[in-house]
Amino acid sequence: MIRLFHVPLSPFCRKVRLSLAEKKLEVELVEERYWERDPDFLRRNPAGKVPVLRIDDMILSESAAICEYIEEKHPTPSLMPNDPEGRFEVRRLVSWFDDKFHHDVTSNLLYERVNRKLTKSGYPDSKNVKAGSKAIKYHLDYMAWLLDRRRWLAGDSMTLADFAAAAHLSSLDYISDVDWNRSAVVKDWYAKIKSRPAFRSLLADHVSGFPPPEHYADLDF
Amino acid sequence: MIRLFHVPLSPFCRKVRLSLAEKKLEVELVEERYWERDPDFLRRNPAGKVPVLRIDDMILSESAAICEYIEEKHPTPSLMPNDPEGRFEVRRLVSWFDDKFHHDVTSNLLYERVNRKLTKSGYPDSKNVKAGSKAIKYHLDYMAWLLDRRRWLAGDSMTLADFAAAAHLSSLDYISDVDWNRSAVVKDWYAKIKSRPAFRSLLADHVSGFPPPEHYADLDF
Ligand SMILES: N[C@@H](CCC(=O)N[C@@H](CS)C(=O)NCC(=O)O)C(=O)O
Ligand SMILES: N[C@@H](CCC(=O)N[C@@H](CS)C(=O)NCC(=O)O)C(=O)O
Repeated sequence: MIRLFHVPLSPFCRKVRLSLAEKKLEVELVEERYWERDPDFLRRNPAGKVPVLRIDDMILSESAAICEYIEEKHPTPSLMPNDPEGRFEVRRLVSWFDDKFHHDVTSNLLYERVNRKLTKSGYPDSKNVKAGSKAIKYHLDYMAWLLDRRRWLAGDSMTLADFAAAAHLSSLDYISDVDWNRSAVVKDWYAKIKSRPAFRSLLADHVSGFPPPEHYADLDF
Repeated sequence: MIRLFHVPLSPFCRKVRLSLAEKKLEVELVEERYWERDPDFLRRNPAGKVPVLRIDDMILSESAAICEYIEEKHPTPSLMPNDPEGRFEVRRLVSWFDDKFHHDVTSNLLYERVNRKLTKSGYPDSKNVKAGSKAIKYHLDYMAWLLDRRRWLAGDSMTLADFAAAAHLSSLDYISDVDWNRSAVVKDWYAKIKSRPAFRSLLADHVSGFPPPEHYADLDF
């Protein structure tokens, strides 16, 4: 049985969950309160981070490496284009979201509003929240610019890039931090991806102390 | 002609330079003072980060995606294993260095000591420098643990994982922040990689205002 050590709103974990689900690989989810630094957990991943995936008798960490591994072992349905140029663009965008978007937006909004409380490390820093609220606009505009030119973020088919982006946006949507009215193409893109069966498990998440808003699981948001 | 927009001590740029050189792809290096936010540069990469590579009539950003692209287009000599498990381990370690090592060590030491001065953004924060000096020990020990079990970081052959690690360590060695006496296996590994022709261009770097120590370019350090 595949097992994922995760936290529900982690965008890195959500990206892996989406990949597994899209490929119809059943997974047992185990919540891992990484901030408690359980020694068993640190043995599984000395970096002390989630996601950690147990699959094929191996223990894998680092979400980008995990998703490439899943893709190579279970190539259909494909989440990667066939040409090097197409694959480059997918990987560039996955890094864009997991490095730049994460730094500019997710860490300023989600980590301030939710993780600080969960990990009992103080109150949200309003300077950071403000910076995040400003930065998400720029990122949504960048997505709109891409989606004006392409059906999906990296090209004509749905790829890991869409999952990386949707992982971050869905976590932020859980705390009502995404203004879906900013761009019609971005909203359409999210509606498309949100309605996939692979998304269901994410939409069913409930973090205690943080009830999701009604629109979060609504396919007609 | 391949052209790389870079800064000399950036570990992400160095990883790309090592990959290109190992594959004997000649590159023209163009120094990009990214903190000046030149509009031409931002057009090439809206993330405003280096490295940016011009190759095959494309403009590429994000070092991990760039290295995978180079690997796919120029597969020999190979910097990636043939099996999915081997490739996973390479990608995991590249992420380990570019995410965790970068966060724990490079940003606390190199960015505090060098980038702050270059970008005229104040003095090194001694709390960060202290944290970086402490964290590098843990990381060198982790590398030693791996190298006690393997010839190279990810397995029996030299891969992108070694280049990612060597890119960070070489930048830190430029400012004398690596204690090579901590581990004999790590020192041997670095001596091996440092003596490769691909490393020469890195060893010739000179950043004005920051002369390298003598041992930096010495193969017998
Ligand atoms: N590069 C890692 C990042 C994972 C990550 O940062 N996960 C967060 C949760 S969203 C975490 O575990 N943080 C704990 C820590 O940094 O100590 C990946 O892609 O898997
Ligand atoms: N994920 C990027 C990171 C590149 C990066 O952070 N580069 C630094 C220089 S070492 C930079 O350009 N920083 C400018 C900024 O963050 O604004 C990659 O792998 O290429």
